[in-house]
Amino acid sequence: MKKSVFYHAGCPVCVSAEHEILELMDPSSIEVVHLGEEKSKIELAEKAGVKSVPALVTPTGKVLHLNFGASMADLKN
Amino acid sequence: MKKSVFYHAGCPVCVSAEHEILELMDPSSIEVVHLGEEKSKIELAEKAGVKSVPALVTPTGKVLHLNFGASMADLKN
Repeated sequence: MKKSVFYHAGCPVCVSAEHEILELMDPSSIEVVHLGEEKSKIELAEKAGVKSVPALVTPTGKVLHLNFGASMADLKN
Repeated sequence: MKKSVFYHAGCPVCVSAEHEILELMDPSSIEVVHLGEEKSKIELAEKAGVKSVPALVTPTGKVLHLNFGASMADLKN
């Protein structure tokens, strides 16, 4: 099964959302990516349509932006 | 098991998010509330912390605002 990807950047809003998502969904179906630590993946996330974190990219390629934590532009600094 | 509540208002953003959520989570664990049709529940949603739709209120009472569709103020008109 293709996994969902949860993008975050370690901010409090991100951590809270991650906790909720992992409670609600099967954790083994989610790949968690910390864009603050893996800045090389920012471009990949943007290409997937991620505009802010935390965000969940589903196996079908849809993007769900969760509670607003930080914009992608902020992550590049 | 206590259910999550997915609040929406029939807007395109809401319908798209609902589709994704029902794919990702167990549909039987989610109660879907259409605030456009059940305006009496707007107050309940606001008390739960919902500021815009679509939003998911988890069994533990946390609110996840998904892609922004409409503010609660807009729904009262």
